[in-house]
Amino acid sequence: MNIILLSGGSGKRLWPLSNDIRSKQFIKMFKKPNGDYESMVQRVYRQILKVDKDAVVTVATSKTQVSAIHNQLGDKVGISVEPCRRDTFPAIALATSYLHDVQGVSEEESVVVCPVDPYVQDDYFTCLKELGMQADKGEANLVLMGIKPTYPSEKYGYIIPKDGNALSYVSEFKEKPNVDTAKKYIKQNALWNGGVFAYKIKYVLEKAHELIDFSDYKDLYSKYETLEKISFDYAVVEKEKSIQVMQFSGEWKDIGTWNTLTETMEEPIIGNGIINDTCSGVNILNELDRPILAMGLHDVIISASPEGILVADKEQSSYIKPYVDKFEQQIMFAEKSWGNYEVLDVEKESLTIKVTLNPGHKMNYHSHAHRDEVWVVVEGKGKTVVEGVEQTVSCGDVIEIKQGRRHTIIADTTLKLIEIQLGKEISVHDKQKFKLD
Amino acid sequence: MNIILLSGGSGKRLWPLSNDIRSKQFIKMFKKPNGDYESMVQRVYRQILKVDKDAVVTVATSKTQVSAIHNQLGDKVGISVEPCRRDTFPAIALATSYLHDVQGVSEEESVVVCPVDPYVQDDYFTCLKELGMQADKGEANLVLMGIKPTYPSEKYGYIIPKDGNALSYVSEFKEKPNVDTAKKYIKQNALWNGGVFAYKIKYVLEKAHELIDFSDYKDLYSKYETLEKISFDYAVVEKEKSIQVMQFSGEWKDIGTWNTLTETMEEPIIGNGIINDTCSGVNILNELDRPILAMGLHDVIISASPEGILVADKEQSSYIKPYVDKFEQQIMFAEKSWGNYEVLDVEKESLTIKVTLNPGHKMNYHSHAHRDEVWVVVEGKGKTVVEGVEQTVSCGDVIEIKQGRRHTIIADTTLKLIEIQLGKEISVHDKQKFKLD
Repeated sequence: MNIILLSGGSGKRLWPLSNDIRSKQFIKMFKKPNGDYESMVQRVYRQILKVDKDAVVTVATSKTQVSAIHNQLGDKVGISVEPCRRDTFPAIALATSYLHDVQGVSEEESVVVCPVDPYVQDDYFTCLKELGMQADKGEANLVLMGIKPTYPSEKYGYIIPKDGNALSYVSEFKEKPNVDTAKKYIKQNALWNGGVFAYKIKYVLEKAHELIDFSDYKDLYSKYETLEKISFDYAVVEKEKSIQVMQFSGEWKDIGTWNTLTETMEEPIIGNGIINDTCSGVNILNELDRPILAMGLHDVIISASPEGILVADKEQSSYIKPYVDKFEQQIMFAEKSWGNYEVLDVEKESLTIKVTLNPGHKMNYHSHAHRDEVWVVVEGKGKTVVEGVEQTVSCGDVIEIKQGRRHTIIADTTLKLIEIQLGKEISVHDKQKFKLD
Repeated sequence: MNIILLSGGSGKRLWPLSNDIRSKQFIKMFKKPNGDYESMVQRVYRQILKVDKDAVVTVATSKTQVSAIHNQLGDKVGISVEPCRRDTFPAIALATSYLHDVQGVSEEESVVVCPVDPYVQDDYFTCLKELGMQADKGEANLVLMGIKPTYPSEKYGYIIPKDGNALSYVSEFKEKPNVDTAKKYIKQNALWNGGVFAYKIKYVLEKAHELIDFSDYKDLYSKYETLEKISFDYAVVEKEKSIQVMQFSGEWKDIGTWNTLTETMEEPIIGNGIINDTCSGVNILNELDRPILAMGLHDVIISASPEGILVADKEQSSYIKPYVDKFEQQIMFAEKSWGNYEVLDVEKESLTIKVTLNPGHKMNYHSHAHRDEVWVVVEGKGKTVVEGVEQTVSCGDVIEIKQGRRHTIIADTTLKLIEIQLGKEISVHDKQKFKLD
């Protein structure tokens, strides 16, 4: 199957684990069968390949996430890069056009579009595959997944089907209702709209050409910034008469808040921590080396990362955003295509970070106008290039890079270094990239 | 007045701010009149000098605290260093002998002994002064401070006076009672025993010679390790017939647990933090750069330091010790005579720390058998000596020190450096000290 994963923007609802540059889908907090932890996007990708090892997966996302996606999913996954955020209709049009024009997928083939952040089991992806096969048949222009409600939720939109069969034509869409209205809908066999649908590529390309004046993927990409912000639901789904809906009645959770996230945790503690026996309903997610001790607490989430520490009553944790907005803070951790870095210390005229490069990866060849840097290799082997001069390096080596000098490092093994930045104007924006000959 | 401050050992009851090498009396958590923060020992020392600017203050403590005391109180304070811990009778005997033999205080003069950790106002020290003056009169061998009870506490020993006057002879001592017995005592004018007393130097020297075979301070110091562990109460007070007690009815708190500590906080937050309006009775003490956000919590203490993070119901926080004992952890922060250091990063074969030297101070001249070090100066000016070779250093300078090579750094201004230790066996014990010629 062809599948487009919509990888949404950054958000602060899961602060301190998510922030302006680190989206929730990249936080490693789900236990894998082998005991390691994986992120939402890794979990979903693994589940897709388990159900269909030949699936063509394309992630539709913004430029800022490209590094993290390559870092977590490797190089086989396709990425449809949105030059800027323009809501789901332009994003899906661009990704569909990318599949057709760049990946060479036939316009007769079907595509399944799915958000990247549902917490689901393998049966969900089996259903996605069936969704794609149903779209292939061409009985309707769109085939939606309808999730069988487990309670009269006020949080979701509802799909009213023509009948109660596993596959049915859609009669109507309903906005998020109150509980009583939701109960009425459920009596009419209504299903939750989980934002998952399948279509033939030519259908969405047609819709895109109707609404946007463009020739091909490249052209659409180049004028992306000028496009109107509009959702796929509003631009396409609500106007379409020929829609089928397929029932899914397996486990399904959208992980938007700390409260729903902690429900998915198999064990109450991830990371270094102790919850004493006078606690109940306490979860710890700790990315720091230092231990957390919880005593006498009830229904509390504690999370610590290089960005900060959250201690919140679980219900209250949904209202986190305005408070987090108050923290004016520098980014303390970032995933890059070559690995990641963590800020260790901030002084007036220096910044100390730990850089971890993955084996075989390298930084861009770059220079800084306003700072010197000192690198001390503390693990692994590799090669530095400073102003064209190569040098093999290993644990214990010290490299001094004066401002203006071009430099990079290439990792043979996992390579860790302490980088001390020195200058009066230290900024992530002080960076000029060069080609490495 | 002559005053001996008993500075107790390390403890974990205020973890993560106190630990094996950092005692609670050195944590800066009390707001000074000028808005800065000071530690218990700094607060008590400042209050003593306010009441009696000529007070001769001697801190009786262990070797491990000498650096921290000099760092926080300066060089004017006397220190009677206990070679090892031997309870209060040997400690008071040693400090008294130090005052007499080293400081040259006459044996006719009085001394007031006081723990270093009461949270009190200036009137307490006025009372200490009066205690000393009363001891000078020689009407009794010991003059105790009796604290007027504010409730029938089970936590304190009680002093039963002969009468209810402000100054009275002591009739009896009582161990920590239950509430009903405490109520009975209070009807008899009983007072809390706060561990404060005054005596003439010759009195304690006499008692010391009765129980210990020694000639002078130097001799007592040299055989300190062989002395029996015995409290001053048990060895002296309980056997003495001639004791007066002086009433003190001002504010008095002993700060032993998080619960009592938070009662002394003028503002609920020390450090970087937000307590949202759905919280009540929440205190934050945060030594980290990263912010803490508290939401929907009640009667909870949150404390974060380089050692770890505590989140505890206030009542529960008294039972912290067994849990903290479970953390096998390396020391992440230490005060030294020359400043302090903080561990920034721990890897298998490297340790990165930030070192801060106070102006005019220097490290010992030393070497390491099993590790190399790299210093990067990130603030200030000074001088390094490596194998006898001097070099002036300032921000941006890099100094590499191979294993076995003697080295030190001398700070002209406040000097900060990032030190990266490299080796397979990194340990604080790998250190050989030398004389700097």
